[in-house]
Amino acid sequence: MKKTVVVLLTLASTIGLVRGQQDSIMLDKIYSQSFEEGKAYENLRYLTKQIGNRIAGSEKAAQAVTWSKSLMKSMAFDKVYLQDVDVPFWDRGPAEEAYLVDSKEKLQVLALGGSVATPKSGLTAEVVEVELLSELRQRGDEVRGKIVFVNKPWDESIVETGVAYGLNSSQRSRGPAEAAKLGAVAYLFRSLSSSAVDDFPHTGGTRYVAGIDSIPAIAISAVSAQKLGAALKDDPKTKVFLKNSAAWKGIVKSHNVIAEWRGSEKPDEIITIGGHIDSWDVGEGAHDNGTGTMGTLDAIRTLMALGYKPKHTIRLVFYMNEENGVQGSLKYGEQAKAKQEKIIAAIESDAGGFAPRGFDIKASAASVSWIQQHWKPLFEQKFWVSRFLQGSPGVDSGVWGEHFPNTVMFNFRPDPHRYFDIHHTAKDVFEAVDRRELQSGVAALASLLYLVDQQSDQIGK
Amino acid sequence: MKKTVVVLLTLASTIGLVRGQQDSIMLDKIYSQSFEEGKAYENLRYLTKQIGNRIAGSEKAAQAVTWSKSLMKSMAFDKVYLQDVDVPFWDRGPAEEAYLVDSKEKLQVLALGGSVATPKSGLTAEVVEVELLSELRQRGDEVRGKIVFVNKPWDESIVETGVAYGLNSSQRSRGPAEAAKLGAVAYLFRSLSSSAVDDFPHTGGTRYVAGIDSIPAIAISAVSAQKLGAALKDDPKTKVFLKNSAAWKGIVKSHNVIAEWRGSEKPDEIITIGGHIDSWDVGEGAHDNGTGTMGTLDAIRTLMALGYKPKHTIRLVFYMNEENGVQGSLKYGEQAKAKQEKIIAAIESDAGGFAPRGFDIKASAASVSWIQQHWKPLFEQKFWVSRFLQGSPGVDSGVWGEHFPNTVMFNFRPDPHRYFDIHHTAKDVFEAVDRRELQSGVAALASLLYLVDQQSDQIGK
Repeated sequence: MKKTVVVLLTLASTIGLVRGQQDSIMLDKIYSQSFEEGKAYENLRYLTKQIGNRIAGSEKAAQAVTWSKSLMKSMAFDKVYLQDVDVPFWDRGPAEEAYLVDSKEKLQVLALGGSVATPKSGLTAEVVEVELLSELRQRGDEVRGKIVFVNKPWDESIVETGVAYGLNSSQRSRGPAEAAKLGAVAYLFRSLSSSAVDDFPHTGGTRYVAGIDSIPAIAISAVSAQKLGAALKDDPKTKVFLKNSAAWKGIVKSHNVIAEWRGSEKPDEIITIGGHIDSWDVGEGAHDNGTGTMGTLDAIRTLMALGYKPKHTIRLVFYMNEENGVQGSLKYGEQAKAKQEKIIAAIESDAGGFAPRGFDIKASAASVSWIQQHWKPLFEQKFWVSRFLQGSPGVDSGVWGEHFPNTVMFNFRPDPHRYFDIHHTAKDVFEAVDRRELQSGVAALASLLYLVDQQSDQIGK
Repeated sequence: MKKTVVVLLTLASTIGLVRGQQDSIMLDKIYSQSFEEGKAYENLRYLTKQIGNRIAGSEKAAQAVTWSKSLMKSMAFDKVYLQDVDVPFWDRGPAEEAYLVDSKEKLQVLALGGSVATPKSGLTAEVVEVELLSELRQRGDEVRGKIVFVNKPWDESIVETGVAYGLNSSQRSRGPAEAAKLGAVAYLFRSLSSSAVDDFPHTGGTRYVAGIDSIPAIAISAVSAQKLGAALKDDPKTKVFLKNSAAWKGIVKSHNVIAEWRGSEKPDEIITIGGHIDSWDVGEGAHDNGTGTMGTLDAIRTLMALGYKPKHTIRLVFYMNEENGVQGSLKYGEQAKAKQEKIIAAIESDAGGFAPRGFDIKASAASVSWIQQHWKPLFEQKFWVSRFLQGSPGVDSGVWGEHFPNTVMFNFRPDPHRYFDIHHTAKDVFEAVDRRELQSGVAALASLLYLVDQQSDQIGK
């Protein structure tokens, strides 16, 4: 009996060793294929330069859907289809205007996504500056008839910029309603930029609350915020002129774009991989999220080019409307639930196309620990990918994951240093993406997809 | 007896825990200080924009020495001084010229550091193309009177670009002599660029061998190399015109720039930190190695700003002439040896100012393992710095380290993806450096310096 155990253990450890060697050889092939034949960068060039930014409901978003579908059709997928998604279409209208009334000095502004318009001729009002929304209530009546200006600097000391973003972002979404409740006429929000010398305004979603007036909600660049702050120190009666013409234009028919590569052993078990195809309506949606869509697609192309046969069905999903409504992932979740699909794992890329650092994993502690022990060594030293930590899924997987609590989810984590310099701005363009960094991420995504497909039985515990 | 052991072990582990907590708090302070008050980026701006590139022996190198010294003098060092170094001065002269003789199509070229000149009116010759120098010998007599053209593409599949560089770089240094031995009239070398679509030539050091003719040695951009390769496929008799006017201008008096922050407990034990202050004579020497000098200086400024009192003497060294002669590190080593100095550790930064990834460590396996166990957890999750691997020191530490075999050496490793796109080219300018990435590296360097100073007794075993 004892001997049998020893033999079995030896066998198991030998199998483990062989497995690891096979995986290591496969990862070498994936990295070579990806770097040498990768198409992510050229596809990204097309998406950003030929189509451009593509807010949900826009003509450009429809073009991105059509083009993505044709791109998938040109590959060896078994099935490519569109999933109908009704999206709300928000239109910025002509460029916003803002200046200090006395000096006529221009302020760099950009309406927050979802904002209503100022009166056609704009509005002029005094400004109440706070760092935190919670200070507003103490200002009480002072707020009425004024522009609320939330001027909270970014915490530069946090290396993981997503954490710094999270510290301030709720003030972007909750601010307009809180300000309106106290009678403010507009909401001016210091951009969520990781650089204090950044003079580009950063947009992003905001929300109104039923029963509370909707007031114009506008992002101001970090540099302009400091300028306005200084003006208010000089003269607390400083007035600001604001004008924007944004409006909701109703519901538009749109789509998720989906492609399936049928599994050879367990076709009914699905691994979802992808990211959102929509973007904000400034810049070109390059890092957010052209790299995520073109990167995940190219990860699959890499495996196809290597002649790989997946065991499970690999489903590529380009979600629509992540930026301002998540209607795409809601629809994906509803339909998958209605069909009682078995989605065993999900991989999402929506944090930029910088050098890959690893994956946040939504799974049991035991599963994460298993991954750290077995997969991390395959990546760490040779490919410089070493973060395999328990964490949150991406936004879209998180939304549809409500229906799939047991699905193991991987959230791709590229280097975080530069992302929030360009996020949601006119600077998020093709030129901000480095080919080598992007393609290194593709290789990491393809490698993970391969490992999940091969060893899914190990990670769902 | 057993009880005592248990008590001692418990005590040791409690001390370890307290130590870890203290270190963690200190690293938080270092990162905050560095990101919020960091001066590396503005100092780098001065070095690159006000001084510019600074090959050893040049007027600009002398300016960099003077300015660095005054910068150190403005800080709380106990001692700032210059160490005399005689350096060979190589001068490129007017810009190089190269074209395909028939079509007059221009080729992007740049003489390799140390190259001699062509005849004043240039030279015209047929071309012998090889991928590897080892193929040359088989071409035998064919080489005589021709230009040897080594056209080996970069291996894009290697994430650690320094390894890919190393695979090809010996052909840069050995090539001219090997070609001249067979009667070649010039040596044309495909640039060590990590991108095949790069049309900038990359310079770098080359060598001649006593007793073998010195022939002009010139780098050609990756794009021009492909163009020339294609022309040779069409017509093996394709002739190339080459002209350059580089020359050695003799020995020039120059300096290492050194500053000391005296240790409060063991002033005779020295931790050396720094990088080379010279650069190649194109671009602005930003990543190579403005970031290394301004980064290590700012690491010390960070600790000073926090009121830190070092136990050991911390010695900042800006080495002269790393790029083409290493006379600075040779001199540093000779003098340190002559004075029988006790240099317990060395930290070098000379791999760019990209996002910090970790340190290669020259130490015993036990020591590296100890560092992985005790220091890596302080950096890994929060600060995204996770590579602590046994490896080679930087070039300068490696040179003077010949006299100090027991010194533990740390070689700073930033992200490798983009370095060899710009290395040794006109593209290595201030704008290629990201402030947040640079300052994150400063924080990592300051943290390591603090840990070495506090726990040097643990790592020298």
